[in-house]
Amino acid sequence: MSRVIRLAVIPGDGIGPEVIAEAEKVLDAATASSDVEIEKIRFSLGAARYLETGDTLSDDGLTAIAGTDAILLGAVGGVPGDPRLKDANIERGLLLKLRFALDHYVNLRPAKLYAGVPGPLADPGEIDFVVVREGTEGPYVGNGGSIRTGTVHEVANETSVNTAYGVERVVRYAFALAERRRNRLTLVHKTNVLVNAGGMWKRIVDAVALEHPAVAVDYAHVDAATIHLVTNPGRFDVIVTDNLFGDILTDLAGAVTGGIGLAASGNINPDGTFPSMFEPVHGSAPDIAGTQQADPTAAILSVALLLDHLGLGAESARVTRAAESDIAKRGTTPRTTAEVGDAIARALQA
Amino acid sequence: MSRVIRLAVIPGDGIGPEVIAEAEKVLDAATASSDVEIEKIRFSLGAARYLETGDTLSDDGLTAIAGTDAILLGAVGGVPGDPRLKDANIERGLLLKLRFALDHYVNLRPAKLYAGVPGPLADPGEIDFVVVREGTEGPYVGNGGSIRTGTVHEVANETSVNTAYGVERVVRYAFALAERRRNRLTLVHKTNVLVNAGGMWKRIVDAVALEHPAVAVDYAHVDAATIHLVTNPGRFDVIVTDNLFGDILTDLAGAVTGGIGLAASGNINPDGTFPSMFEPVHGSAPDIAGTQQADPTAAILSVALLLDHLGLGAESARVTRAAESDIAKRGTTPRTTAEVGDAIARALQA
Ligand SMILES: CC(C)[C@H](C(=O)O)[C@@H](O)C(=O)O
Ligand SMILES: CC(C)[C@H](C(=O)O)[C@@H](O)C(=O)O
Repeated sequence: MSRVIRLAVIPGDGIGPEVIAEAEKVLDAATASSDVEIEKIRFSLGAARYLETGDTLSDDGLTAIAGTDAILLGAVGGVPGDPRLKDANIERGLLLKLRFALDHYVNLRPAKLYAGVPGPLADPGEIDFVVVREGTEGPYVGNGGSIRTGTVHEVANETSVNTAYGVERVVRYAFALAERRRNRLTLVHKTNVLVNAGGMWKRIVDAVALEHPAVAVDYAHVDAATIHLVTNPGRFDVIVTDNLFGDILTDLAGAVTGGIGLAASGNINPDGTFPSMFEPVHGSAPDIAGTQQADPTAAILSVALLLDHLGLGAESARVTRAAESDIAKRGTTPRTTAEVGDAIARALQA
Repeated sequence: MSRVIRLAVIPGDGIGPEVIAEAEKVLDAATASSDVEIEKIRFSLGAARYLETGDTLSDDGLTAIAGTDAILLGAVGGVPGDPRLKDANIERGLLLKLRFALDHYVNLRPAKLYAGVPGPLADPGEIDFVVVREGTEGPYVGNGGSIRTGTVHEVANETSVNTAYGVERVVRYAFALAERRRNRLTLVHKTNVLVNAGGMWKRIVDAVALEHPAVAVDYAHVDAATIHLVTNPGRFDVIVTDNLFGDILTDLAGAVTGGIGLAASGNINPDGTFPSMFEPVHGSAPDIAGTQQADPTAAILSVALLLDHLGLGAESARVTRAAESDIAKRGTTPRTTAEVGDAIARALQA
């Protein structure tokens, strides 16, 4: 009797459909000989869809997605500055809406420098850490507004909302992860300026640390953390941080590990109340869309995170290994998006 | 008849006094044969002072500082985690208090890769840009609080406050600076998430741009900007951004240009209503305080910014040239803080 997994697939915009096509090939190859059956439900969502229909994400769409077991997402977002998207905000209306509505409180973003990958650092050393980015609070809550908008007297505010409930659960996740890794956890915040939010994060990390005596804990201000990321990234194992700082650090981490073409992520609801969502860290890159230049590896490594989350640890490890050995063999001759996906899928069938 | 400049000197904590001693040597040498007389007024402020007296910055102290023509500051802040400083917050109570009270709305932070300086990037190219960081608004306003503090029901908020008045003035400064440089300006924000604050920043930049047709304007999300800083920093000329993003980007910029031992800054009140304040970007580094290991170059280059701000362009240029040629000659043999200061001061006397 096979286990059926209902997977929502949201290819999205730009290079999204191209990288997702390869991610699906790899997913299919990885599960072909298992007793798992993946039932895919496709959702046409994103900037292109908005331009056609005016819809960003309907209540019905959200309910349908919430009813699946997991989500695979490519990338969403139109051409920057497209005047027709001026009032849309696909990011807030679709991507962040999913993350918040589905209570994706852990945004898991591994950063690893794979053998053979050229990066921007002269002497990177070993880089292998994971950012546990909070996903449902902080400056991302959309709790802002403006008055006298468009006049010289405009005041525009944004409020970062942080709760002990929300911080404690993501901090606990990060400690548990550190225990399965190298037992190091770094809190990144800006406690000397954002004294209320930062103070609470610090207190909660200190309190949870008492229950994890094996984990060595330290703290870095976000500005100093960016310095460490380019001068000594090897010092990090697990970083736990808020939504905005995590956004910034993970793009930088992607860059120092050879580009966000390799950076995978999971938006995870660890409680299992809602489906978790897996997506490459990169955006929709409309400038190269349709040209088969996009690297599908980040999407494929996101499939590995997806499989692991679904309890398919062996399949996840096989995808990771296949992707890593493909990365290690890469020369300087560019391959198409499909060629990379085919090579990794083929390695799994072998 | 000589012009008298009343200079507040705040050596501060840790390596602050050491680097300021060298900055003063250089300032004295640079102005020795000019018709300017620098009258120095010393202020003992910082974590050490707080531990002695319980004072962070008194009203009288602030008034006295506000009455000077300019301020030279080393670094403030005690040993991280010192329990006696738990309730002090020297950063908010002293450094940010000065920046806000003295309306330092331009935080000017040049980033330049000097010839001969080893940095972390394999192929940095030419790096020469300036970050114009807003200094009196945004997430730094201290507009936060928490309820049910210390309980599982705690809610801790931080509000970023942004005004058209505050944004427009710093944006105008940045455009004028771009016109004196390479005519490029990049706005960095996170408009897709912080739609209210980011939207206002974007609208104001677009409006002011119409008055500066020679300046090419672009925009980068803060996360993407960190990628550019490590993969293609040469693309930047002038970056204008808010207080928090500017804090993060300038530490990263310091790192990619060979370390914050070289990064100078000015907290500027362009209107001249209040004295401007010049300080190295680095902190008080208590771990190496008193060991003469600190590099005074950032403090010395801050003196160049100070001289320029005071209208002493020729003296400023001489300090910059002397510091740059000292940097270019540096070998791998370490010199003491005083040796570096002496060498640069001597070059000015020659
Ligand atoms: C597109 C944007 C809203 C998003 C974010 O800021 O979270 C992206 O940058 C990311 O990191 O996934
Ligand atoms: C010490 C701290 C408050 C300060 C800041 O965040 O502005 C520092 O990091 C800086 O960049 O000058």
